[in-house]
Amino acid sequence: MNFTGAHILSISQFQRSDVEYLFTVANQMEPYALRKRVTRVLEGAILGNMFFEPSTRTRVSFGSAFNLLGGEVRETAGFESSALVKGESLQDTARVLSGFSDVICMRHPQAGSVADFASASRVPVMNGGDGANEHPTQALLDLYTIARELKGKGRGIDGLRIAMIGDLRHGRTVHSLSKLLCLYSNIQVILISPRELALPEDIVEQMRAAGLAVTVSEELNSSIANVDIVYSTRIQEERFTTKEEADLYRGKFRLNQAIYTQYCEPNTVIMHPLPRDSRSDANELDSDLDSNPNLAIFRQTDNGLLIRMALFALVLDVVGKVDQYSHDVRWYNSRQN
Amino acid sequence: MNFTGAHILSISQFQRSDVEYLFTVANQMEPYALRKRVTRVLEGAILGNMFFEPSTRTRVSFGSAFNLLGGEVRETAGFESSALVKGESLQDTARVLSGFSDVICMRHPQAGSVADFASASRVPVMNGGDGANEHPTQALLDLYTIARELKGKGRGIDGLRIAMIGDLRHGRTVHSLSKLLCLYSNIQVILISPRELALPEDIVEQMRAAGLAVTVSEELNSSIANVDIVYSTRIQEERFTTKEEADLYRGKFRLNQAIYTQYCEPNTVIMHPLPRDSRSDANELDSDLDSNPNLAIFRQTDNGLLIRMALFALVLDVVGKVDQYSHDVRWYNSRQN
Amino acid sequence: MNFTGAHILSISQFQRSDVEYLFTVANQMEPYALRKRVTRVLEGAILGNMFFEPSTRTRVSFGSAFNLLGGEVRETAGFESSALVKGESLQDTARVLSGFSDVICMRHPQAGSVADFASASRVPVMNGGDGANEHPTQALLDLYTIARELKGKGRGIDGLRIAMIGDLRHGRTVHSLSKLLCLYSNIQVILISPRELALPEDIVEQMRAAGLAVTVSEELNSSIANVDIVYSTRIQEERFTTKEEADLYRGKFRLNQAIYTQYCEPNTVIMHPLPRDSRSDANELDSDLDSNPNLAIFRQTDNGLLIRMALFALVLDVVGKVDQYSHDVRWYNSRQN
Repeated sequence: MNFTGAHILSISQFQRSDVEYLFTVANQMEPYALRKRVTRVLEGAILGNMFFEPSTRTRVSFGSAFNLLGGEVRETAGFESSALVKGESLQDTARVLSGFSDVICMRHPQAGSVADFASASRVPVMNGGDGANEHPTQALLDLYTIARELKGKGRGIDGLRIAMIGDLRHGRTVHSLSKLLCLYSNIQVILISPRELALPEDIVEQMRAAGLAVTVSEELNSSIANVDIVYSTRIQEERFTTKEEADLYRGKFRLNQAIYTQYCEPNTVIMHPLPRDSRSDANELDSDLDSNPNLAIFRQTDNGLLIRMALFALVLDVVGKVDQYSHDVRWYNSRQN
Repeated sequence: MNFTGAHILSISQFQRSDVEYLFTVANQMEPYALRKRVTRVLEGAILGNMFFEPSTRTRVSFGSAFNLLGGEVRETAGFESSALVKGESLQDTARVLSGFSDVICMRHPQAGSVADFASASRVPVMNGGDGANEHPTQALLDLYTIARELKGKGRGIDGLRIAMIGDLRHGRTVHSLSKLLCLYSNIQVILISPRELALPEDIVEQMRAAGLAVTVSEELNSSIANVDIVYSTRIQEERFTTKEEADLYRGKFRLNQAIYTQYCEPNTVIMHPLPRDSRSDANELDSDLDSNPNLAIFRQTDNGLLIRMALFALVLDVVGKVDQYSHDVRWYNSRQN
Repeated sequence: MNFTGAHILSISQFQRSDVEYLFTVANQMEPYALRKRVTRVLEGAILGNMFFEPSTRTRVSFGSAFNLLGGEVRETAGFESSALVKGESLQDTARVLSGFSDVICMRHPQAGSVADFASASRVPVMNGGDGANEHPTQALLDLYTIARELKGKGRGIDGLRIAMIGDLRHGRTVHSLSKLLCLYSNIQVILISPRELALPEDIVEQMRAAGLAVTVSEELNSSIANVDIVYSTRIQEERFTTKEEADLYRGKFRLNQAIYTQYCEPNTVIMHPLPRDSRSDANELDSDLDSNPNLAIFRQTDNGLLIRMALFALVLDVVGKVDQYSHDVRWYNSRQN
């Protein structure tokens, strides 16, 4: 794909070579994310960070990624404060807001809404999550994390064995990641969920058609025995009709250090798109895993910054100029100490 | 008027020469708004973007305008998160907040509130809309749009024929634009609304006293036959006591391509302060007008950026320095392709 | 204390020499706060301004302070839009958010929460207020104001006589200021409140143990006769179970110019952490005091900017570089005219 000026709406836009190029650029962003260097390449550029559904972490991650490239951020953080409630179409909103910025990141509760918005936008649009549909940057940062974690073991993504756990029906990060894995060979996927929260059948079909070995399970312990990655997810309470319905499934699959030690291969990597639900009735990943060096959940979120910086740099075509407009950090950097 | 350090509270501050000077400066802002050039003239300056009533588009437009001049934006986007609910007077809020920024833009639901606020502020204040009272930058961008649209036809604002349609009682953009038209000669205004939503009598009187030819109508089709501009507006639901009351008037005046073709002169320009209500029971401007090149509604919003940039540059007295601190854009510019 | 990289969580971290050094640095920030100079020393740095409880003034003050040093601000302004409601622990939130910024300022309704957050953060955290517990920057700016007001009279903080008035039970600014006064000698404190809203006993004990002369009163007029500073506070309605309970105490201690003239020594300084409740049933400080030159409440908030700039400069270790990366202001400065 040609990244320059492109909308980033779906994982289905990406070929394997695109993913690999993106990961190379993400690696180049590391000195800036780690505050060893500062770049001003996007000085004067404006990101319209339009979150029509609340999400502090994703919103701040996109915004910080843009700031780290030297750009400014204008944003909105909720549906209420929007003209949409006055009856404006998404296309109108897009025509208006795209006049105010150089690139837009958008989250919206309705599936397909970001693509609708992009169709009328005059600047590139990135999908920050559209309902239960997709969340492509999360899938890309997940795969980037997998690649980095496996690289430490001298491995690539081909040949990956991964268990995905939890609310696979509503968890859009799982949907997008599943599609992305179709670009690779010799992948084994184990889907662990209550039957009612199973991964949508069309995605399972897509994976099988691409040659992935997919198995389905409703039981955690035995299913995580022979994998490289355990990918746990949260019950997406906000996608259920009632809280009571969500409560039926909360806490069904809990991983802690004892289970990990008993069932997993040594050095199985633990991932989660976050936030993990740490309330006692959920506790998807017990805090006793926090000292386990294979818990990669916070490396995931850090990698998100790199992926988003890389996407901005690619879409705005400044990859080759990032270093040119850079200088050393002038302030105390907690990360290096 | 002397723009330097001035509050911009009302259209009544503007003489014709002020408007003309503002429009000249707005024209100078175009290379920056179109992302051909970047200026850093306001590097280090802070806009306090205080929206005590939600309005994504106006808030982001002011913020982006300030960013485009190189400045930073601190903002608030709702009444709840304000000390006003703890019983603080607007004057106290002004004294406090004006210590944090170099210029303030404020929106507030109460008429007259922004002027009260400005009276205690130590920095220039711009009215971003105070209830049903005024919204001066909208009126200025509307007039600027009229000027640009007519200029393409070799005409000036003098001699303008304009039809204003919809909720003329609550629509503050119409109030402010009406007052602004009083500065020009040989203007014909046709006011089309339900009787209950008629333009306030004092504004009608003011226009007539200034020599404008004002006629009143409750019927759309016949009234748009001989005008240069059709200016449609939304039923301002939030200004009614109940939604039901607003519903009585919604959808009364709908313009679409068929009506336009049948009744309007060729090349009649269509304007709207946005958001247009596109729900089926309202549909003030049908989407079949979107491909009509005379639909100027998105040029209006783009012009808003130019007007707001110009006002900031004038009030902070940097008009002559904008180009001096500028350089070429470094990133991919979707607008030029 | 070593400021570099430190969390600023509580007033108890500060020795007298730390306070004095902080005040010296705050003085150095004045040309930037007054917009005589612009510094870019923190260009590229990001403040994570995480307000999980609304507070426009404190949030904007921290944000503006960071902007004035050249840095960028990413922020959140309410509990709703947070992953905390999805069951995420504060420690997880801290691990995630600290990857996105160089320093974090946090406000949260729960006492102790900011320290919990800081324990998992990878960057320095400043307490912007944690429930009824502490609000250290407010206490520091209060003491800085006291020092500046007394300096005009050729005095230092030692020997201070201060009356604290109102909701001393819930007012965390009073708690923190009381602790800070323990670092000084020969201090007289008069605590004026309804018995039910008295200063917590442990803080009174701490002051007495440090050698302060503390007296308690339920009557305003006679108690403000022999002090240098009258420090009034608001009934902290949001800390009561019901509004009705708060109403019992509202308006009990009202100061106006007549009372001031009759009871106070000449040039007694009036302070208030703001917002002051100006509704008729409260009216803690009548607006007829606004023309009294001893009303220091707006100098307090201006001083807040200096204290917060100084803390950022100290924690990020750029005090010696602020001037190096500075230049003159390019725009019209209302403050100098």
